[in-house]
Amino acid sequence: MSLQFNGFGLMNLCDLAPEYIRAISPYRPGKPISELAREMNMDERAIIKLASNENPLGPSPLALEAMSRALDQVALYPDGSGFELKAALSQRYGVSSDQIVLGNGSNDVLELAARVFLKPGASAVFSQHAFAVYPLVTQAVGASGIAIRAINYGHDLDAMLHAVMPETRMVFIANPNNPTGTLLAAQDVLRFLERVSPDVLVVLDEAYNEYLPTAVKADSIAWLKRFPNLLITRTFSKAYGMAGVRVGFGLAHPDVSGLMNRVRQPFNVNSIGLAGAVAALKDEEFVKRSYALNQAGMLQITTGLRQLGIEYIPSYGNFLSFRVPGDVKAVNESLLEQGVIVRPIGIYEMPEHLRVTVGLESENQKFLKSLEIALDAARDIPRIVPAMRAEMVRGESV
Amino acid sequence: MSLQFNGFGLMNLCDLAPEYIRAISPYRPGKPISELAREMNMDERAIIKLASNENPLGPSPLALEAMSRALDQVALYPDGSGFELKAALSQRYGVSSDQIVLGNGSNDVLELAARVFLKPGASAVFSQHAFAVYPLVTQAVGASGIAIRAINYGHDLDAMLHAVMPETRMVFIANPNNPTGTLLAAQDVLRFLERVSPDVLVVLDEAYNEYLPTAVKADSIAWLKRFPNLLITRTFSKAYGMAGVRVGFGLAHPDVSGLMNRVRQPFNVNSIGLAGAVAALKDEEFVKRSYALNQAGMLQITTGLRQLGIEYIPSYGNFLSFRVPGDVKAVNESLLEQGVIVRPIGIYEMPEHLRVTVGLESENQKFLKSLEIALDAARDIPRIVPAMRAEMVRGESV
Repeated sequence: MSLQFNGFGLMNLCDLAPEYIRAISPYRPGKPISELAREMNMDERAIIKLASNENPLGPSPLALEAMSRALDQVALYPDGSGFELKAALSQRYGVSSDQIVLGNGSNDVLELAARVFLKPGASAVFSQHAFAVYPLVTQAVGASGIAIRAINYGHDLDAMLHAVMPETRMVFIANPNNPTGTLLAAQDVLRFLERVSPDVLVVLDEAYNEYLPTAVKADSIAWLKRFPNLLITRTFSKAYGMAGVRVGFGLAHPDVSGLMNRVRQPFNVNSIGLAGAVAALKDEEFVKRSYALNQAGMLQITTGLRQLGIEYIPSYGNFLSFRVPGDVKAVNESLLEQGVIVRPIGIYEMPEHLRVTVGLESENQKFLKSLEIALDAARDIPRIVPAMRAEMVRGESV
Repeated sequence: MSLQFNGFGLMNLCDLAPEYIRAISPYRPGKPISELAREMNMDERAIIKLASNENPLGPSPLALEAMSRALDQVALYPDGSGFELKAALSQRYGVSSDQIVLGNGSNDVLELAARVFLKPGASAVFSQHAFAVYPLVTQAVGASGIAIRAINYGHDLDAMLHAVMPETRMVFIANPNNPTGTLLAAQDVLRFLERVSPDVLVVLDEAYNEYLPTAVKADSIAWLKRFPNLLITRTFSKAYGMAGVRVGFGLAHPDVSGLMNRVRQPFNVNSIGLAGAVAALKDEEFVKRSYALNQAGMLQITTGLRQLGIEYIPSYGNFLSFRVPGDVKAVNESLLEQGVIVRPIGIYEMPEHLRVTVGLESENQKFLKSLEIALDAARDIPRIVPAMRAEMVRGESV
């Protein structure tokens, strides 16, 4: 090739990007409710979204008020140190401020950990059916992911321990795990921490911690004193009902959080989220209400699924994965046509399952009813199809 | 050493983090206004912050209303694809949606570019006195930064071109530059793009674009058609007055933006910011008003500085860097005592300068008056010191 440019070969810039970056699957965003509404010619308000494990109660009224007030100062950069939120978390959890890393959602915290402790040549261990972000952040820094086969959809901690190689720098443990909802007993996680090499960072992802009954909740934060290689991640996106403003945090030994804070974008958490999170921590009553609603809703959904003869994985989260008898795609399509968005989880190697978030009583009821219709339609039983039902309802209402 | 643990040596986890991560200087956060107020025993409302190049008008009222409305849905995850904002940007700038990368501020966009195109062994070129984030994102991925001596505080594009090595993958050009306010002529940037190797990504950081008079504004977005190695970054943090909600974006060839979107956190931009940005784009009148206020304020400040005999760097931004005659630290301390926060820029290799943001007319006036007092105090001229003035004012008001 004689074609030259500025002394260098005319290579393609993107071909020169690291192979591990080019190998990442392009991100395929989900459809916004508004888009589904347009496609299905539906009123947006007729659509219920039980797909992303959000809190159907919204945020605490105190948090909402604080966020609304924070809009007055929205022209100013956020406090890059998150001074007030760290002070509140410090008080709540009995850790020092320098043990805290604030993140743009806990996704950000997970990514910061991977960027600090992984690099090409290093590896990270996680479980099959675990949160999709673990392999993603591992690959994005050029490290290798080691996925360990699950037992009954839960983490196989013994196998994970034995999978740790000399070059392994991180192990991800989700407790409870999304999307399976499985929970590891506290003593099993503790035993893992005691046995794993201290030069491996153990990320204990407790995004759904607030949905756990007290009796099975590990005192994981107390473990920080014993294990300088432990990073606990939590979020305001689930029980606190603030997924839209992206606030998560990590708790760790100050050396670990110190390194993560060096890589952190100076203003990674927005000021509305910071203000909301400080206020949310003051409203324990709200979290209790969210917990109680979830317990009742979970019973409602599992009872309904049993009546439909549907097999499901008992869950400790605010969601439930169930096995669809027959054509998952057809059932999901039918649910969408009825204005119910749940989550297909083929990406989690669970192509026969759908995941549903526990919603309000009326939403759970609509989901169960819609699922019944979807299953009937998928079975080709000649019952009344949804379009006809809609016609009848309209006829009746005239 | 016979001390072993789980078969491996008892090494320190943090010592095993990549050297380039451990070499990053710990982040030193600025004091929040609230903290300064406590320290100085001052009313927060008496403090003016002219330190972060924020818009003193706040955001557009349309944006504020949209953000307030978006709080109703704050429990839901943001639209990870930023569908509506991309559509609005696409229409405004005549680019396709797949050319856009949305970021948690333009800081996020700069970091995504570094993570995609740099790695250990690669290098990035930037100017002396340029935005501190360029060397930071370069180091955080283990690449080398090549800082090119500035000419009259501005970029030396010829020297930057010649500094490009075969392993160089990125060049950062800030136009106008922060903190110097210098502007490169459009034809000079264009000539650089024509001459630099197409396998080097040229990041044209136009965070302050909206503050430029039309006559000197480059039609940089039109260049995207000619240069697949061009990434333009913009932000809603400056003229749009929305720094608190962290929205920035990059425009590039779809191949470039495609790779960046693969590394992007799925929900990197919060839903309040997304809603605000869409609305802000509709209020061109507000941006015009912000531009006009800045022009008038800049004249007010430069006139005042000339009257004080202070040397400054003519600026095309919404800020101005001026040389302090004498002890910078003492002058800055005195400004703080008087409730005026400006930015020391020693970190930018400009230890004799302070940077002030153009504020409201009354804020600019308070800044100039306080600076006069600070300079007098620093010169040890026995005039009335600030504390005594405060006493007198209090005395008078009784």
